[in-house]
Amino acid sequence: MTDQNHLLQFLLRQGDNALILSHRVSEWCGHSPILEEDIALANTALDLIGQTQMWLGYAAEVQAEGKSADDLAFLRDAWDFRNILLVELPNGDFGRTLLRQFLFDAHQSVLMGRLIKSSDDTVAAIAAKASKEVAYHVERSADTVVGLGDGTAESHERMQAALDYLWPYVGEMFTSDDTDTAMAIAGIAPEPSTLRDEFHALVTRVLTDATLTIPGGRFSHKGGRTGEMHTEHLGHLLATMQWLQRAYPGCEW
Amino acid sequence: MTDQNHLLQFLLRQGDNALILSHRVSEWCGHSPILEEDIALANTALDLIGQTQMWLGYAAEVQAEGKSADDLAFLRDAWDFRNILLVELPNGDFGRTLLRQFLFDAHQSVLMGRLIKSSDDTVAAIAAKASKEVAYHVERSADTVVGLGDGTAESHERMQAALDYLWPYVGEMFTSDDTDTAMAIAGIAPEPSTLRDEFHALVTRVLTDATLTIPGGRFSHKGGRTGEMHTEHLGHLLATMQWLQRAYPGCEW
Repeated sequence: MTDQNHLLQFLLRQGDNALILSHRVSEWCGHSPILEEDIALANTALDLIGQTQMWLGYAAEVQAEGKSADDLAFLRDAWDFRNILLVELPNGDFGRTLLRQFLFDAHQSVLMGRLIKSSDDTVAAIAAKASKEVAYHVERSADTVVGLGDGTAESHERMQAALDYLWPYVGEMFTSDDTDTAMAIAGIAPEPSTLRDEFHALVTRVLTDATLTIPGGRFSHKGGRTGEMHTEHLGHLLATMQWLQRAYPGCEW
Repeated sequence: MTDQNHLLQFLLRQGDNALILSHRVSEWCGHSPILEEDIALANTALDLIGQTQMWLGYAAEVQAEGKSADDLAFLRDAWDFRNILLVELPNGDFGRTLLRQFLFDAHQSVLMGRLIKSSDDTVAAIAAKASKEVAYHVERSADTVVGLGDGTAESHERMQAALDYLWPYVGEMFTSDDTDTAMAIAGIAPEPSTLRDEFHALVTRVLTDATLTIPGGRFSHKGGRTGEMHTEHLGHLLATMQWLQRAYPGCEW
């Protein structure tokens, strides 16, 4: 794979994570337990769409096939997506959605802190912009995780069940392949494994405050960010997300 | 509206009911509680697809715009569908799916008994073919409703909850508009309201055997068969169902 292809893969991974999680979060719109949360989640989804626009916009530029960020978002099929499996999982209840958000935000906060020093100016600029939003997201999702984890007996039980469900999807964020190595050598992005300690320290602190127990075992589902395997949920998500562009090709407004 | 337009509307209603319920039933494929039920539900879905092919095939012929049954199934949008709301509702648990199936089958068994005497030879022929399948469907779904309703405390409770949920969608099957009146005058199909007593007798007998209580009140959700209003669920169903034809326009195999 050429350096440009590796860069493209890297950018698709960032963009697809933001895009797919944005869609999942947007599914709460009009359904959240209270109005304030509804608006907060909608804003989170919008932030993630903004980040998607930047990552996929740059990806399209690097790809140089005349496509736009919209083309990449709406006209690729499931096997072309490079998001981690964590973000495509169904929302479950409100607590699980916020716990997933926290796990993602925690990783993003560590990653963006590194990417602002990227040797690629565009990557650094995107990370600088995104990192402000991410700092706010992680503070907010951490607060909610603590509030619900260290809340009532039922909310605690649900949050522990959510953590047990989600934790086996965390490890994929730290897997590495040729693309990651190429990015590290070029100084564009760090090897994923080098983020683990900082991530783990942050997550352990918050989950301890939340009185939640991190499951044992090191098994991890993976295959999303390499495109080898997605869950059955991604196809359904894309069918909904891409419906308008598929049903009315080329429509604009 | 011309007579041909009324006939087209009538045929779309029959075809869309079969199509949308078929899709819902097919969602169980690979997920049913036991293998025998999985196969039985898949077969029910296939029967309904066969009926769809006949109703929408004739609808396309009456419409005379050069479209096929496939075009009508896969390239119309939510507002063009004419199915009753009952069939587009999410499956819920296995018991609710089978109870909906029974309510639909019971109505179909009464309706097909009338349509085999239709003044329109094609309608009569479709009804004759469908009525054999419907007779089998209603026997099977009635048995399951009785088995689960008059089963364990939990299965009884779930079936009663399912009936409470589904019953307000039953009334739409007996509503009437200009199209129904035109069909009745032409001797093509009976006024929906004339099926109510026979339907009610059948349903009451089975639900009584199932130790279930029909909810009081005469309120009914409606708007699906006239196309005035569908639930939010139909759009999601169509996004999934129509995905292949939308993503790969004109594909054949």
